[in-house]
Amino acid sequence: MKLWEIKKSSLNKKIEEYTVGEDSTIDNVIVPYDCMVTLAHAKLLYKMGILSKSELKKLVVELKGIMKLSKRGLFKIEKEEEDSHTAIENYLTARLGSIGKKIHAFRSRNEQIIGAFRLFCKEELANIEKLINDLIDEIKNFKIKYGKIKLPGYTHTRKAMESNLGMWCDWIIESMEDNKKLIATVKELIDQCPLGTGAGFGLPVKVDRNFLAKKSGFKTVQKSPVYTQNSRGKFESTILHVLTQIMFDLNKISSDIILFSLDNFGYFSLSNDICTGSSMMPHKRNPDALEIMRGNYHKVLSYEFQIKSLISNLISGYHRDFQLTKKPVVEAFKITKNSLEIMMLIIRGIGVNKTKCEQDLTSDLYSVNKVYKKVMEGKPFREAYRKVKKDYEKV
Amino acid sequence: MKLWEIKKSSLNKKIEEYTVGEDSTIDNVIVPYDCMVTLAHAKLLYKMGILSKSELKKLVVELKGIMKLSKRGLFKIEKEEEDSHTAIENYLTARLGSIGKKIHAFRSRNEQIIGAFRLFCKEELANIEKLINDLIDEIKNFKIKYGKIKLPGYTHTRKAMESNLGMWCDWIIESMEDNKKLIATVKELIDQCPLGTGAGFGLPVKVDRNFLAKKSGFKTVQKSPVYTQNSRGKFESTILHVLTQIMFDLNKISSDIILFSLDNFGYFSLSNDICTGSSMMPHKRNPDALEIMRGNYHKVLSYEFQIKSLISNLISGYHRDFQLTKKPVVEAFKITKNSLEIMMLIIRGIGVNKTKCEQDLTSDLYSVNKVYKKVMEGKPFREAYRKVKKDYEKV
Amino acid sequence: MKLWEIKKSSLNKKIEEYTVGEDSTIDNVIVPYDCMVTLAHAKLLYKMGILSKSELKKLVVELKGIMKLSKRGLFKIEKEEEDSHTAIENYLTARLGSIGKKIHAFRSRNEQIIGAFRLFCKEELANIEKLINDLIDEIKNFKIKYGKIKLPGYTHTRKAMESNLGMWCDWIIESMEDNKKLIATVKELIDQCPLGTGAGFGLPVKVDRNFLAKKSGFKTVQKSPVYTQNSRGKFESTILHVLTQIMFDLNKISSDIILFSLDNFGYFSLSNDICTGSSMMPHKRNPDALEIMRGNYHKVLSYEFQIKSLISNLISGYHRDFQLTKKPVVEAFKITKNSLEIMMLIIRGIGVNKTKCEQDLTSDLYSVNKVYKKVMEGKPFREAYRKVKKDYEKV
Amino acid sequence: MKLWEIKKSSLNKKIEEYTVGEDSTIDNVIVPYDCMVTLAHAKLLYKMGILSKSELKKLVVELKGIMKLSKRGLFKIEKEEEDSHTAIENYLTARLGSIGKKIHAFRSRNEQIIGAFRLFCKEELANIEKLINDLIDEIKNFKIKYGKIKLPGYTHTRKAMESNLGMWCDWIIESMEDNKKLIATVKELIDQCPLGTGAGFGLPVKVDRNFLAKKSGFKTVQKSPVYTQNSRGKFESTILHVLTQIMFDLNKISSDIILFSLDNFGYFSLSNDICTGSSMMPHKRNPDALEIMRGNYHKVLSYEFQIKSLISNLISGYHRDFQLTKKPVVEAFKITKNSLEIMMLIIRGIGVNKTKCEQDLTSDLYSVNKVYKKVMEGKPFREAYRKVKKDYEKV
Repeated sequence: MKLWEIKKSSLNKKIEEYTVGEDSTIDNVIVPYDCMVTLAHAKLLYKMGILSKSELKKLVVELKGIMKLSKRGLFKIEKEEEDSHTAIENYLTARLGSIGKKIHAFRSRNEQIIGAFRLFCKEELANIEKLINDLIDEIKNFKIKYGKIKLPGYTHTRKAMESNLGMWCDWIIESMEDNKKLIATVKELIDQCPLGTGAGFGLPVKVDRNFLAKKSGFKTVQKSPVYTQNSRGKFESTILHVLTQIMFDLNKISSDIILFSLDNFGYFSLSNDICTGSSMMPHKRNPDALEIMRGNYHKVLSYEFQIKSLISNLISGYHRDFQLTKKPVVEAFKITKNSLEIMMLIIRGIGVNKTKCEQDLTSDLYSVNKVYKKVMEGKPFREAYRKVKKDYEKV
Repeated sequence: MKLWEIKKSSLNKKIEEYTVGEDSTIDNVIVPYDCMVTLAHAKLLYKMGILSKSELKKLVVELKGIMKLSKRGLFKIEKEEEDSHTAIENYLTARLGSIGKKIHAFRSRNEQIIGAFRLFCKEELANIEKLINDLIDEIKNFKIKYGKIKLPGYTHTRKAMESNLGMWCDWIIESMEDNKKLIATVKELIDQCPLGTGAGFGLPVKVDRNFLAKKSGFKTVQKSPVYTQNSRGKFESTILHVLTQIMFDLNKISSDIILFSLDNFGYFSLSNDICTGSSMMPHKRNPDALEIMRGNYHKVLSYEFQIKSLISNLISGYHRDFQLTKKPVVEAFKITKNSLEIMMLIIRGIGVNKTKCEQDLTSDLYSVNKVYKKVMEGKPFREAYRKVKKDYEKV
Repeated sequence: MKLWEIKKSSLNKKIEEYTVGEDSTIDNVIVPYDCMVTLAHAKLLYKMGILSKSELKKLVVELKGIMKLSKRGLFKIEKEEEDSHTAIENYLTARLGSIGKKIHAFRSRNEQIIGAFRLFCKEELANIEKLINDLIDEIKNFKIKYGKIKLPGYTHTRKAMESNLGMWCDWIIESMEDNKKLIATVKELIDQCPLGTGAGFGLPVKVDRNFLAKKSGFKTVQKSPVYTQNSRGKFESTILHVLTQIMFDLNKISSDIILFSLDNFGYFSLSNDICTGSSMMPHKRNPDALEIMRGNYHKVLSYEFQIKSLISNLISGYHRDFQLTKKPVVEAFKITKNSLEIMMLIIRGIGVNKTKCEQDLTSDLYSVNKVYKKVMEGKPFREAYRKVKKDYEKV
Repeated sequence: MKLWEIKKSSLNKKIEEYTVGEDSTIDNVIVPYDCMVTLAHAKLLYKMGILSKSELKKLVVELKGIMKLSKRGLFKIEKEEEDSHTAIENYLTARLGSIGKKIHAFRSRNEQIIGAFRLFCKEELANIEKLINDLIDEIKNFKIKYGKIKLPGYTHTRKAMESNLGMWCDWIIESMEDNKKLIATVKELIDQCPLGTGAGFGLPVKVDRNFLAKKSGFKTVQKSPVYTQNSRGKFESTILHVLTQIMFDLNKISSDIILFSLDNFGYFSLSNDICTGSSMMPHKRNPDALEIMRGNYHKVLSYEFQIKSLISNLISGYHRDFQLTKKPVVEAFKITKNSLEIMMLIIRGIGVNKTKCEQDLTSDLYSVNKVYKKVMEGKPFREAYRKVKKDYEKV
């Protein structure tokens, strides 16, 4: 039974299925965080005299029980129940009777989902941060092993100047460090508690929002109730932007490795256990994981675009369209975490062919050196450049 | 065991999971179509003397068996098997021994998936066409009932001129008719048989491609083997474009109904069984299905963008990135079909409040009539316009 | 003075500038087509007795005059005039007095811009078609010269099987032929006359819409007045989709040429006059035009998504937001035309290094041949495959 | 003459035009910042003994001269010159002979454009920040005037609960404050000096990068030369993300005002000088500026996706494709600045109709109060909710 129904199944079954969509599976991810905000809310209700001490205790026990069940994949949300909020209230009511029926006093699902989802995102961002650190360590190891090997640097996909693998490692490290700064900002941004704002216009009862924030683990209170709703999708899109930045780096690293491990280059070799084969051509060893990673950037990117397009041209306040902002974020976190892990595996499995790298260091890579020599001897740069260039034209 | 493996599980488990991704579930949709192209291929192999008559017969039986199992959800693709192609070959080999091992002669998975996927898309496009016709019928019924009711026409979200519900019905009908023309084009476009092109560069053995096309139900042969691969994603993006056009209309119809059924308008009312409620505010009756439909436009749109971005900046030939083009199409078909069905339900459940519609036909909606009266009397239009406008300014 | 003003400059200057935006320059492109629909409209007004024969004659002369001025870049639209419609009416009124003031009877700018813009698009689509044919001819010439040269075919950016430049030419030709089919569909789609629909809800005066369609050169009448407005952006997005398909092919051709002309490949060489240099490294010869072309795909793609996102979540009827749909289309046509022309130039300037192509035809490209030989001798394919693969593993 | 040419016009004219594109106009914006980085570079060359004190002095004078000319729109970049870098060097050489020819020693245009562009972006971000503060002030004034007026709060575009204009003001203020935090992060992110990194692989001569950073006004040195190039587009996309966040708020404010000033609501009225009219319907007063602003969100959004799609699937190092990242950023800054200014104007011109606002505060907006009353009396919330809901169902 849905929270807003007074008799079961008043809603057309097809409409129910269409509106619930994938929520009954996505919300599984949300359940533990929903329990956390519900726990904080229960404490508020106790503080306000709506729940007795023993009622609170029972609720705490049951909510922790749900969290445990959820961790083991045993807490089910029925399609008929719409979402995690309903499933939790129904469970509490089934177990505790009227105590469960008390839990939704002075709150709305509109604030509840935002609170739960932000807690989820905070944790996922911390997970991403950790994986980035791991990847940086992996790159540092690679640099220790291979950093001094020289190879051509390419501009316009054309040999430009001498480079080395240390330089290649450094861009990844620095870029990932910058990504961590963006993560820090977005973590700060979303660490605002929406609880106590009702459906987006406050409540006709005074609730202690600082208390709610503290008990649910938020750093600050998001003051404006209208903003709690209007920031939905907006915050999510900033999270997705940060994930696209990380995936962009992985897209480029993948592109580099795919090219460098191509026969015509041969700078890198990939270990057998990370390559796949062809169903038809027995000689093939394909870098599928890197291609999927390259492609996954576009998946995360399209999620960002989906949210940013979805939330536009709408007036203030909650719209059910916002429900569709959950899946892109959940999926993007999953993809980004997996991709970071896989990239570590791949980096670990790269072999470097020093001979092939150095063999490609042809003399034209040092054309600038010739120019600078003349500059050092006093020739204006542009004249020196044109003089050297003339020699190349002759060839 | 994968088709390209010579010993089981040579691939790192994490890499396997990352590259296979959601294919083991998505490919369930593909299985019957994969059987169809495999059936055509088996006939070719018989024609070429690779399979005997009795071997062909056995294969036909088993492939039809797979199709039946698949329809009942009983044909499973293991993660370890990567895709439907592997699952089918493994199944055939398990049942028929060396006959199964013969089936992949003179073909590649690269052509096989394109063939199977196009057959799937052809059928889905036909399904969409049918649903559009049903929706048009529904709108025609609505027009018969309510078409003559007058209400304001809005430009700039401002009352402009008198309109009527018949006009509102007509745009939907005409737009959906245009959508059908686009469907016809894309059906024609993808009705090109990729079979017999190998991995994208033809085969070292001559195969009768016209025979393959005929047996697998394609209208023409897609001649260039390179183009079969390079059109992957490209064709898919055209399919998605057509689906966004349909979803765009549904997005606008939803926007219209949401506004017209808002208290401040009251032109439309929505039946109870298509409205959802609030967990907190007992008076609410919300048009969630329409909001989800509005939002689903952006989902389909982001799928189109994902594919168009994904396939860019890559050289000719197959890339594993292309695997990611399947899910967006499968999902977009599902969303579009569901949305068309739901829209029919909603249209059927709309009530029209004639009084409220007519009540809003205020005199300013007829300002043009005043101007045209003067024009008919011989006054140049712009003078007549400015004269009438002056009266409005005074107000 | 704007058409809707009764005294000059009633609008805040900053608001004027913001709303007009780039229209005063973009609309220069529209002027001739605006004259065409205005010409058709003048004939209607004559038919309806609003204009006398001599008045019509004078209007015809002046409108043709504007078209000539416009062709020579001498017809100016002032910011203060908002758009081409205003500039034309103001010009006619300045030259012909009250005759000019009569021209806007029984029409709205909402239909006028759609009519003019569609005529513009029809012509541009024809231009694109012609350029595609020219490119196909260029590719055919290239094929005659180099088609038989063999080189490796790549899958997963890895050497797969023997290919040849003829195959490379064929995919471009076939893909461009398919693009032409899409152009034909979109030309048909937009060949619907919006004239006579007023602001989107018809007119309080009966006008002969078939007459208008015939005189302005449209194939059919777009019947529903609401649909004329609701198809705005929708039709534009279909045009842009078709342009992205063309640009996608150019993106891929560019990617191919950039890689094949890279030192490590050396299959292609680019003539000096299509390469640019570096300000610093005298040896560099960069394929900038190809990189810009690759990038321009994304520009056109983003235009498509701009329109598709812009027009969403809005109710039926005209919105000023639609003004922003003009520039993306005008720009995308320009980019696509230029890109097709440049691609011809580049193809003409490619040299092929037969030795380098053939040198890369290493034995592994023929691994399938080994497998098929065994198949021909009666071995089941999968066994043959695994046997041959074992040999490669040993290496 | 281009910097890399040894004789004039060696490049095909059409290729030249295609590759230069809009750079000769966009780069006008860059000229002053290009002078700044060139100034820093000149000081480095003096420090390194390449320029004498008097040569440096002359360069300083000329560069400051260019900045002045540029401010007055008098410094021209010829198409033939490609970009601001070439125009500046050519100008310096024309005025100072061989001193000008010395300026490009030990640097590349690849680093120069990044340095100049980041300086430009830093200034634009500061401008945006200031305008946000101005808008916040404007909203605060509006709140003082109208904040206490009550009106319905909407969820699902349905009347939900009592709200007031103060709440509406607060969300804008808080959201804009959050936007400022994002601006601070991106300002920090891009405040990294790319100078001294050459074409992306360092220089064969040691240069003092800390000196360059200090002299050009950057906070830190971006260490990895490869990262300077690989962060191009990446940093730009973060800037654009921040601008979309601001534009998103403006999109929502516009949507709110358009609806609230619609006849059927009448909460807001818009002053005459910010409304436009219809060429046909004399009674119309349209909120065009708000519609354009709503639309401009999508323009900025599409710019973000253009860059994010453009830079993907490419290997490390500079590609000419990056040139196309400039215009989206320049345009997006312009649109965002204009939009913020226009929003201030509009807010200032809003009138509030208190009667209409309060008139819509119907009793159902207080359904929650009824429920909470029962809760306060001891009834479990869900029971209270269902009891009150039953009364609404009866109606």
